[in-house]
Amino acid sequence: MTSPPPMLERLLAPRSVAIVGASEKPGALGASVLANLVRNGFDGAIHLINPKRAEIDGRPCLPAIADLPLGVDVAVLAIPQAGVVPALRDLAARGCGAAVVFAAGFAEGGPQGLADQHEIGRIAAASGMVIEGPNCLGLVNHARRLPLTFVETLVPTDGQRHGRGVGIVSQSGAMAAVLGTTLMSRALNLTLSVSTGNEAATGVEDYVEHLVADPGTEVIAMIVEQFRRPQRFLATARAARAAGKLIVLLHPGRSAAARESAATHTGAMAGDHPLMRAMVARAGVVLAETLEELGDIAEIASRCPALPAGGTAVLGESGAFKALSLDLCEGLGLKLPALDDANAPAVRAALPPFVAVSNPLDITAQGLVEPDIYARLIRALADDARFGCIVAGIIQTDAATCAIKLPPIRRAVAEAPLAKPLIFAGLDEGAGIGADDRDALRAAGVPVFPSSERVFRAIARLAALADAAGGARTPAPLALALPAAGGVIPEYQAKQLLTPHGIGVPSGRLATSADAAVAIAAELGVPVALKAQAAALSHKSDAGGVILNLGDAAAVRAGWARMHADIAAFDPALRLDGVLVEAMGRRGLELIIGARRDPDWGPVVLVGLGGVTAEILHDVRLITPDMDAAAIIAELGRLRCAPLLWGYRGSPALDVTAVAALVLRLIDVLAGTPALREVDLNPVIVHPDGVVALDALMLADPAG
Amino acid sequence: MTSPPPMLERLLAPRSVAIVGASEKPGALGASVLANLVRNGFDGAIHLINPKRAEIDGRPCLPAIADLPLGVDVAVLAIPQAGVVPALRDLAARGCGAAVVFAAGFAEGGPQGLADQHEIGRIAAASGMVIEGPNCLGLVNHARRLPLTFVETLVPTDGQRHGRGVGIVSQSGAMAAVLGTTLMSRALNLTLSVSTGNEAATGVEDYVEHLVADPGTEVIAMIVEQFRRPQRFLATARAARAAGKLIVLLHPGRSAAARESAATHTGAMAGDHPLMRAMVARAGVVLAETLEELGDIAEIASRCPALPAGGTAVLGESGAFKALSLDLCEGLGLKLPALDDANAPAVRAALPPFVAVSNPLDITAQGLVEPDIYARLIRALADDARFGCIVAGIIQTDAATCAIKLPPIRRAVAEAPLAKPLIFAGLDEGAGIGADDRDALRAAGVPVFPSSERVFRAIARLAALADAAGGARTPAPLALALPAAGGVIPEYQAKQLLTPHGIGVPSGRLATSADAAVAIAAELGVPVALKAQAAALSHKSDAGGVILNLGDAAAVRAGWARMHADIAAFDPALRLDGVLVEAMGRRGLELIIGARRDPDWGPVVLVGLGGVTAEILHDVRLITPDMDAAAIIAELGRLRCAPLLWGYRGSPALDVTAVAALVLRLIDVLAGTPALREVDLNPVIVHPDGVVALDALMLADPAG
Repeated sequence: MTSPPPMLERLLAPRSVAIVGASEKPGALGASVLANLVRNGFDGAIHLINPKRAEIDGRPCLPAIADLPLGVDVAVLAIPQAGVVPALRDLAARGCGAAVVFAAGFAEGGPQGLADQHEIGRIAAASGMVIEGPNCLGLVNHARRLPLTFVETLVPTDGQRHGRGVGIVSQSGAMAAVLGTTLMSRALNLTLSVSTGNEAATGVEDYVEHLVADPGTEVIAMIVEQFRRPQRFLATARAARAAGKLIVLLHPGRSAAARESAATHTGAMAGDHPLMRAMVARAGVVLAETLEELGDIAEIASRCPALPAGGTAVLGESGAFKALSLDLCEGLGLKLPALDDANAPAVRAALPPFVAVSNPLDITAQGLVEPDIYARLIRALADDARFGCIVAGIIQTDAATCAIKLPPIRRAVAEAPLAKPLIFAGLDEGAGIGADDRDALRAAGVPVFPSSERVFRAIARLAALADAAGGARTPAPLALALPAAGGVIPEYQAKQLLTPHGIGVPSGRLATSADAAVAIAAELGVPVALKAQAAALSHKSDAGGVILNLGDAAAVRAGWARMHADIAAFDPALRLDGVLVEAMGRRGLELIIGARRDPDWGPVVLVGLGGVTAEILHDVRLITPDMDAAAIIAELGRLRCAPLLWGYRGSPALDVTAVAALVLRLIDVLAGTPALREVDLNPVIVHPDGVVALDALMLADPAG
Repeated sequence: MTSPPPMLERLLAPRSVAIVGASEKPGALGASVLANLVRNGFDGAIHLINPKRAEIDGRPCLPAIADLPLGVDVAVLAIPQAGVVPALRDLAARGCGAAVVFAAGFAEGGPQGLADQHEIGRIAAASGMVIEGPNCLGLVNHARRLPLTFVETLVPTDGQRHGRGVGIVSQSGAMAAVLGTTLMSRALNLTLSVSTGNEAATGVEDYVEHLVADPGTEVIAMIVEQFRRPQRFLATARAARAAGKLIVLLHPGRSAAARESAATHTGAMAGDHPLMRAMVARAGVVLAETLEELGDIAEIASRCPALPAGGTAVLGESGAFKALSLDLCEGLGLKLPALDDANAPAVRAALPPFVAVSNPLDITAQGLVEPDIYARLIRALADDARFGCIVAGIIQTDAATCAIKLPPIRRAVAEAPLAKPLIFAGLDEGAGIGADDRDALRAAGVPVFPSSERVFRAIARLAALADAAGGARTPAPLALALPAAGGVIPEYQAKQLLTPHGIGVPSGRLATSADAAVAIAAELGVPVALKAQAAALSHKSDAGGVILNLGDAAAVRAGWARMHADIAAFDPALRLDGVLVEAMGRRGLELIIGARRDPDWGPVVLVGLGGVTAEILHDVRLITPDMDAAAIIAELGRLRCAPLLWGYRGSPALDVTAVAALVLRLIDVLAGTPALREVDLNPVIVHPDGVVALDALMLADPAG
């Protein structure tokens, strides 16, 4: 998993290209690949391979790969599935640097296809050849105008694009093409678009790593159905963030049906989707929910002088638009700091007296009378530190109206470059501002959108990134001395292991006789609880293995007898380690806290409200191992039932700091105890002054 | 509220128009109104009024309204606020049929403006003149190419538009214009666009009523910030539904900030937004959440041969698009019935063997090789009764690709008109199909969208309308004999009033002495509850007025004494009517059920889960008075905590039929008892076999 990135240069910026399966037939893959190279002016060597032709389009054809010169940079395999593995072996023998495999029918096509796919991986590993695919659409290196794909492609020349470089990395070839078309139509500065397909040898992680290192790329748009090397991706995402680059990710799989579909069509296994989301978001990746959003976020990140952050100012021309924006932004959690005469003198000065100062602003149709209002407001809002973003929701109507409104807007951004995003949202879709105005705004770093809805959705995702609460922390590993046998570690042992590390549990001890239980109860003070203990008894309540609130010695004895009878009836073969006698504690709010080591994503802690209602609502948050206490408390605040933690209707505020400390200890324990797979604390009772884990269970691997 | 609709014909289809405040100055309101009439070929009489000009553009000017001929159909007032009321008086004196008032500064402009607005209403009522506005942008009668607005307007001629007639009714003039521009740019068949502004005399209800009666209009798109005559709107909405016409409504006000904003800019008071939503949705109105959605839903309703209903089939070309669609549709609650080889032989036959049958379909790039697949699939899905709608998510790429894919799609709809919607969703926005293909699809009743997201959102709203569960019921009024004094009716009286109508409460009687309480307890069987009763004691728990679980006579006596002491301490002046002694009941699920009569919207019943968690989550549903038991049960099923009602994790299913019966009784009681304002049953305990209202409180108006 920590292997260095393959050397992608020969694949992405080749000086020589071989087309295996070259063709003269229009529409054939091999013909399209060649046409793309010629159309975009590729000036390196092109080698065509086709045993049935001596030449194609006036270029000589070689009969076989064996006839290639040594050391061609990249071979594009425009041949059917059956020929792929032999061709790759032959290419490796000729010292070819890289290969692109379009053919499908590998992992997604049954056992033989899967075996072939594994063989591709072995060839790549043994030869050092970089292999893209199979089941992919190839790539387009926009920066060098170099397409290695059968999708008809004409890379725009530099003069036609603006903004910071955007790279596309997608497992789906179709979606890479769709996104590329869309972003090019917006005149964005694409650098590289790669589709990775089934990822027999190289995967999205490799290409993202390359783009993070690429000085020309600052935004990376990804479409992924399954991260095969999650830890590597997380490390790359953190590196991107540190370098000030943005990764935007669209990852289907929220629904079970989508996860199943992904498995069918790429052979990728569905991972834990909520965990993926929590982990990548924490690493600074912005998650888009739809293809539209992915493009929108990428455009804003590429074109604007900075990412939206903090408050948003909305410049509008209608009261109804103002109300609609308030609804929409509240729903999106997008902050619109309030403006009034007193707190915004510069905005006040920009407006005639009868236009009220507010946010969103409603300048009515006054802009038609006094167009300079647009310029004055943009300057005033640009200078106002409360705002990290300005949205201009403009009614375009027709060319005559645009001829009044657009010049002052263009002037405002031309006079002095803005340091924060200004986004033009045309409200009347289809009216459209003219291409001249649109292009001028784009060139000045102002994205032009056909609706305000899309703008608000996109900037809400970006603002959430900027507003992420809390800091990072490196776990302080705590090693637990687990039983060598592994397996289920019952409550009394789990509690013994955890309490030395500051995780509070009720006072109690293990009894192996009724007399001992009575003695322990006397020592602890009544009432007490009795809890049967055995590794084989994970769900002790179901077997009658939990009896609460025993108020005197007689009750303890009677409880002991009843419990042993019930358990014997439940499973005559079961041997108890003993019975845990515990003091009954105070009432409080019940949480469920579960820590586990995910095989893909590593340690994670789930925190949720206890009880059946919370369970129905799936009201849980996932805590990643790099969160500090403040970040954990912020996550607790995102529980829908969070008001219960912070004191609701006169009940006292509960000790969320202690909850966070408990979660941090679990993270440390997982970090320091590699054999530990799971710790379940259910319930944990939260008081105004601390937390107590009433139950505890662990699952461990055998010592190896 | 039940006044007949004003005669709108003279306003909407005038044969003579007076422009008060006519002007020759370009950009002046009066000049724009005249230019619009001329540009669109208005062939009726035009009267210009301006005391400072003898003629304008070669047309004679009259010095004053008094110089107008009698009986002009409509006057457009392009004059400042101060002149409006006198001008309207003068117009009424000349028998003018209608007036359009652009000027602002009425209810939204302070006390004098509000008084002026009231005066406009009085002038309209006294003279019979139809007045639109003030603070409006006027109207455009598209069907007659007749604009009465200062917004520059060129009504498209009939050849340029397709689909069933769409009317626009908006309080906001700006939003009416924005929506009009958008729908015209989509070549839709607009009939009328009206902005009602402050609604001094006529309101959205009047214009919608007119459009429901208009044979040329079948879809009505509305933007409303406040219904001033809700009952009239509901009746019109039901009439529209009965006539097979669709009303789509965008109504800001979900957020408190939006409601406040609406009040500020139009002087309208914010109503109860969730109640408005429940009522209009039940009346068959589709609620759009954004301006984009409003236009999208209107286009589908106007252009498609029928409304989407039931299952949706998705024709796609990519596995990732399939997964994204599954996620999106699950989130939207849009049903995608599963397809496989066995259940869809016609779809199977339309595809080559190596393309799997599924929904969404993923035909891969095979459509480029065998374009007839598109036509075959569309026909197969059109003939499949499981689907009420087909979405084609197409990768457009470029003109060459569209030249392959579009012909078979056009052929499929040209060969035989479809009976269900087919919607074209281009996935790569900006690639865009050519105008020829787009126009041909539109003319054939196929909307063309720039993304699948928008299609899915719009059809999800429409499918929800079609899927509305349950039927309609007319309340069977039940008259309660309320105390003449009105006010709070305490628990014991409320229960006495409700039990004869089949609303179950615990067994119990009122005691006025400790001895009587003991005797009642003996009769009921212990344990019992004691509950202090007085109209002034609505929150009896806070005063120590509720004691539960008293297990014998001594406990009842002790409880009696404690309760009286506590209440005396709480409020020495309070006199109890007595103490309700009730049998303790079985445990069960707690609901809150509250019935009330809203001053605007009439009777409504709120049902929610009891308990603090449900309260934090606002997990409630509103039951409208025309729902039958099946509709009520369907609403209960939409509670987020609904699994608790239907049996969760082995707990038994609860008696939702009894809950529905209780709700119906409350509706009947409100219908038959006009003085009754509120009934609160909190909690109501639901068992597997019935419901019991543990507490009851009523609020009534004094007999009048």
